Amino acid sequence: MYTLLKTDKKEVVIGIDKPFVIIGEKINPTGIKKLGQALVDGNMDYVKQLAIRQVAWGADVLDINVGHPQIDEAAIIPMVVEAVKSVVDVPLCIDSNEPKILEAGLRVAPGKPLVNSVNGEEKQLASVLPIVKERGAAVIGLTIADEGIPPTAEGRLAAAGRIIERAVKMGIPIEDIIIDPLVMTVGHNSMAATITIRTIELIKKEYGVNMSLGASNVSFGLPDRHSVNAAFLTLAMQAGATCSITDAIKLGGAIRATDLLLGRDANSMRYLKYFRATEKLREAEAAAKQ
Amino acid sequence: MYTLLKTDKKEVVIGIDKPFVIIGEKINPTGIKKLGQALVDGNMDYVKQLAIRQVAWGADVLDINVGHPQIDEAAIIPMVVEAVKSVVDVPLCIDSNEPKILEAGLRVAPGKPLVNSVNGEEKQLASVLPIVKERGAAVIGLTIADEGIPPTAEGRLAAAGRIIERAVKMGIPIEDIIIDPLVMTVGHNSMAATITIRTIELIKKEYGVNMSLGASNVSFGLPDRHSVNAAFLTLAMQAGATCSITDAIKLGGAIRATDLLLGRDANSMRYLKYFRATEKLREAEAAAKQ
Repeated sequence: MYTLLKTDKKEVVIGIDKPFVIIGEKINPTGIKKLGQALVDGNMDYVKQLAIRQVAWGADVLDINVGHPQIDEAAIIPMVVEAVKSVVDVPLCIDSNEPKILEAGLRVAPGKPLVNSVNGEEKQLASVLPIVKERGAAVIGLTIADEGIPPTAEGRLAAAGRIIERAVKMGIPIEDIIIDPLVMTVGHNSMAATITIRTIELIKKEYGVNMSLGASNVSFGLPDRHSVNAAFLTLAMQAGATCSITDAIKLGGAIRATDLLLGRDANSMRYLKYFRATEKLREAEAAAKQ
Repeated sequence: MYTLLKTDKKEVVIGIDKPFVIIGEKINPTGIKKLGQALVDGNMDYVKQLAIRQVAWGADVLDINVGHPQIDEAAIIPMVVEAVKSVVDVPLCIDSNEPKILEAGLRVAPGKPLVNSVNGEEKQLASVLPIVKERGAAVIGLTIADEGIPPTAEGRLAAAGRIIERAVKMGIPIEDIIIDPLVMTVGHNSMAATITIRTIELIKKEYGVNMSLGASNVSFGLPDRHSVNAAFLTLAMQAGATCSITDAIKLGGAIRATDLLLGRDANSMRYLKYFRATEKLREAEAAAKQ
């Protein structure tokens, strides 16, 4: 099953036999103080820099999130989308669970965008899915039920099923639904990752839809988070995850290596291209710092 | 199924629900010129340094290989084993396919050692297995048949079956046979890793024996070999590999992270212990260099 995202100039296909799709996560003021301040000031230069850098390092899609206590999100998100569009050609992922903000972002997003996210709570399904349908977008569905995040893989499968059923009934094609099976912090629960891997296997078998993961939660509170995040993405890719909202700069290498090992990169073309491009970027960025 | 290796002071258990076992690979003059020269000179100081460093960085077992054109291996291997025994307590893996060298090494190896390796060729089975049986050692069996390395997972399963059958008939307990499913270079054949992963899955299902991998072959000829080796070990561990002859210093982090994610490290104890120990070692080694 293939999810197609596009702009006028670029198409991105998400699917199990395709290279893993990286949805660059950096345009999000949570944890990036400098970006929060730039957004408050209405200064789009830093947004543009971040967008250019993520795409240069291999992001196929860019996530756009403007959640910040001092910001009128519905007013600022169109400005951010326009700024990003002015410097890169990739499809965008509009990141909010507020209908008003989603609509404001989707209105100016190019081509066929992605919505991040809806979950399985009744209120969310009823408010977000009609917007997705109306815009002809694809959507990420988080496996959360009215009672919260199911602790078992079977519970998350059921939550995914509910989202898929509701969306399809509303006329959203099943290939435009991407499920996020969620991962908790392995430092708190040593079975957290295995539950997610099992959820991926169950959803793949039952629905065959594309699956996305935010990979950095899993390592929260641990030292050397990179080793844990990289190994987790490799495990998730083997199980059936097909895209991730992640930092292309940090995890691109592990992702391209895993694609290669899973037989999705004939003659190592993509791996070698990634390596050469990032080697040059690393040199250029190091030189710029001196 | 558990493979037990031991010395007077230390036991190592290899098994699917246990932390992955690292067989430190560095005591091998292939590619380490300085070690080759030290062995030619009969100087054991560098051997001792390498042994201490691998164990400090997390090697559970040490592989001992003295293959070098200028060395009488059968004469030198007892000296190397004695040198290693004098500084570390871990079980040893005697690495040769020459019966005379294996016997010389096994005679002085402590406790219950491992033999690396036998393969499925008739000549090898007939010459190596009796030595393993006589010494009460465990043995790594490479999935090579009389015709060479089978190109398919099914062919490698058959080669593994032949080794297991012959060894068991000779009275070697099945739990003392560790199969190496072999991995070729993914740069030459983009399906190389998937064939190995499939072999691991088949052998796990059919025999349930422990499996070992030399993980560095897979990345031969590629840039950033570390990313490929780390991702490959993660995939192999998920499929059922339980130990690896590898460099504890380079791949310990990826291995401990994967153990943690696979639910084999309650409360992240082993991961945190590894991180703290190696952080101190890194600082000490950096200070020593200044």
